[in-house]
Amino acid sequence: MKKSIDGNARELAAAPRVAANGLIDRRIFLQRSVAGGLALAGGMAGAHAASVGDGAQPWQKRIGAPMSAIGSPSKFVEGRMQRGVLKPYGAIAPGTGVSMTPLHELHGTITPNRLHFERHHNGVPDIDPDQHSLTIHGLVKRPLKFDMAALLRYPMTNRICFVECSGNSFFNTFPEAQALPAGMIHGLVSCSEWTGVPLSILLDEAGVDVRAKWIVAEGADAATMGRSIPLSKAMDDVIVALYQNGEPVRPEQGFPVRLVNPGYEGNTSIKWLHRIKVSDRPAHTKDETSKYTDLLPDGSSDQFTFTMGVKSVITRPSGGMTMGSKGFYEISGLSWSGAGRVRRVEVSADGGGTWADAHLHGPALDKSLTRFSIAWNWDGAPVQLQSRATDDKGRVQITRAQWKSGYGPGHVYHYNAIQSWLVNDLGEVSNAYL
Amino acid sequence: MKKSIDGNARELAAAPRVAANGLIDRRIFLQRSVAGGLALAGGMAGAHAASVGDGAQPWQKRIGAPMSAIGSPSKFVEGRMQRGVLKPYGAIAPGTGVSMTPLHELHGTITPNRLHFERHHNGVPDIDPDQHSLTIHGLVKRPLKFDMAALLRYPMTNRICFVECSGNSFFNTFPEAQALPAGMIHGLVSCSEWTGVPLSILLDEAGVDVRAKWIVAEGADAATMGRSIPLSKAMDDVIVALYQNGEPVRPEQGFPVRLVNPGYEGNTSIKWLHRIKVSDRPAHTKDETSKYTDLLPDGSSDQFTFTMGVKSVITRPSGGMTMGSKGFYEISGLSWSGAGRVRRVEVSADGGGTWADAHLHGPALDKSLTRFSIAWNWDGAPVQLQSRATDDKGRVQITRAQWKSGYGPGHVYHYNAIQSWLVNDLGEVSNAYL
Repeated sequence: MKKSIDGNARELAAAPRVAANGLIDRRIFLQRSVAGGLALAGGMAGAHAASVGDGAQPWQKRIGAPMSAIGSPSKFVEGRMQRGVLKPYGAIAPGTGVSMTPLHELHGTITPNRLHFERHHNGVPDIDPDQHSLTIHGLVKRPLKFDMAALLRYPMTNRICFVECSGNSFFNTFPEAQALPAGMIHGLVSCSEWTGVPLSILLDEAGVDVRAKWIVAEGADAATMGRSIPLSKAMDDVIVALYQNGEPVRPEQGFPVRLVNPGYEGNTSIKWLHRIKVSDRPAHTKDETSKYTDLLPDGSSDQFTFTMGVKSVITRPSGGMTMGSKGFYEISGLSWSGAGRVRRVEVSADGGGTWADAHLHGPALDKSLTRFSIAWNWDGAPVQLQSRATDDKGRVQITRAQWKSGYGPGHVYHYNAIQSWLVNDLGEVSNAYL
Repeated sequence: MKKSIDGNARELAAAPRVAANGLIDRRIFLQRSVAGGLALAGGMAGAHAASVGDGAQPWQKRIGAPMSAIGSPSKFVEGRMQRGVLKPYGAIAPGTGVSMTPLHELHGTITPNRLHFERHHNGVPDIDPDQHSLTIHGLVKRPLKFDMAALLRYPMTNRICFVECSGNSFFNTFPEAQALPAGMIHGLVSCSEWTGVPLSILLDEAGVDVRAKWIVAEGADAATMGRSIPLSKAMDDVIVALYQNGEPVRPEQGFPVRLVNPGYEGNTSIKWLHRIKVSDRPAHTKDETSKYTDLLPDGSSDQFTFTMGVKSVITRPSGGMTMGSKGFYEISGLSWSGAGRVRRVEVSADGGGTWADAHLHGPALDKSLTRFSIAWNWDGAPVQLQSRATDDKGRVQITRAQWKSGYGPGHVYHYNAIQSWLVNDLGEVSNAYL
């Protein structure tokens, strides 16, 4: 049995090309009348059925493990199914840092809860839900305080959306860094089905004063993380989230209750949500003045740049992987936009010279991770792989050089430039820093 | 602070009713101009802002836990976030039985991987993916054998869909059983985003003979679980799944590779997939003759009744729960159909006398769990709560008595009748067996 798809060189050579260096029209695999004629070769094309029977494997000869109350990953993969933990700022405060989703090990679009990225400013509080409450006060007719049992009685909504740290991909703002897998560069984005009470319902009950223009949300962690959010957003699609992918939100994601602001930078989705003050102005908390502002080339800073940019990254192949034999591969990756839906992802295999449209996989929801893929015949020569997303607002990813020219030195937030992977002639994949 | 929503009796009494015993038009909460006028009372309506400030909780005064490679549920809920393990057939064979998703503890529609239900016939094999292969043979031009590395190079598709055991809800076929929560009655259904290679691509590569009408899929477990599946289904939407909710399929779900047949009874979604034989007839394996056939009133049996019925169940409130104070609640539940999309769910609070349309939550995908909800003002009196789903093929849930009359004594498969919960005057919820 061969270890990889060698492909049938003659037939792959005849397949319709959609861009340089082997990008192929995906329809050849999806239209049976054509795909059926291709010998992609799973290993033993042309062998006889008589040779098919294996001797039974040991696990077919003995009774397996019993049912369990809680499932676990296979021991053969669990070492790879972990978040990468980093303290990128030299541990300014105890409990600050990130852990990153291993995007390069995952497929699909939903992130398992235990692998959702973390960003904490003073560690994960261990909150007793019976001792926790959410207060809404400030410019409201009726200040309200909710215990968790009360929140559970309110109408809830479900929404699949991504959360992305505004500092995601910060390594790509450095001149050049070590070889890292995609998850360690771009893994401060994850995607979940969030369930909770629309914040608009709670604000309506409190009765928002006509002078109000902002809310200030505050967490019950030791950092008292706080962010100002426009009232228009709060009344639009913000969720007071109690559940994540079906189960109660986990401690590192804000148990027992957090905000989820779809499309906004992650730090505004306040975890361990304890207090919402309705105001006529932003609070200028430490978390929106000392950080989470955007340095500009002229030395000034932009504040309250909430919406995350349109973005994509090829996750397979990606940094740290080594290709198998030449021949057919599917290039696959993730795309998203804080402003809406991804409308288009293009892929280039010649460093941006020619581009081909990738296939967007459903359900391709608003402000959610969207999987894209394109068929590729790698001929064994060095190539540069890039992806470029466009959202339904017409925003398009730009190059790393273009992105850097728009900000001041040392700026790391809202990085959304095109990711370039270099595949060398040994099949080794690394960050091209283009 | 009050422990629950008491509601404002006068205003709730004036809210528009959509069916008997307190079912309310959900729009009163979603149209701000109306909802804003209701004092649903989160606990301290009318209190002054000055009284809002709590003393800080202990977790706000100390540094929290650091980032971690793998997240965990809160210690305050983890005891409830478990599957219920059962050996309902008296352990005929070692390793047979089920573990059930705790639907009553979950919200949204996605099931966390570690809580996806299990049904095994001879335990969970511990398969080394490097020693595992998938063979396609029989009525094909080119028998093919794939190792796992080869499968990873093929074009993949993502699909959110449910998997339901054909024996789900079997307790409801008994005359009357003990008090059980919703998950222990109906928890043999779960919903995931599955990612893998469309089976049609692999069959096309093998070159299916014109005489072929069926495939026979076989697992590498000790039970050699095997099922015959119509070729038309295999070429339509069947996935050779490698990933579940982003990560590699877990051992109890079929690691390293399983079939997923959207909408079909779960046992056809062969786990630990090892072999697919293309044939002109079904194989009549032990798993489709000794079981998974439908006993009819005349003593005969139906075979190959693949498609799961249209179904719904209220998960909150549900069996084993005790209501808090009277007043406002959201009734919430899950609905699904093996034949397509859920088009409508109706809820009754008077044992089927009057019905009101529930709200269907997005994304409401084809052959996927779909969340429904409706607003409800419980006046403290005993009620019977029911839900009734209709799918886009026009199929409607029937009563338990109607369902039972359609099958022979002792039949347990494909149970999809209306679930009735009884709320007594103490607020205790139990299975009404109606």
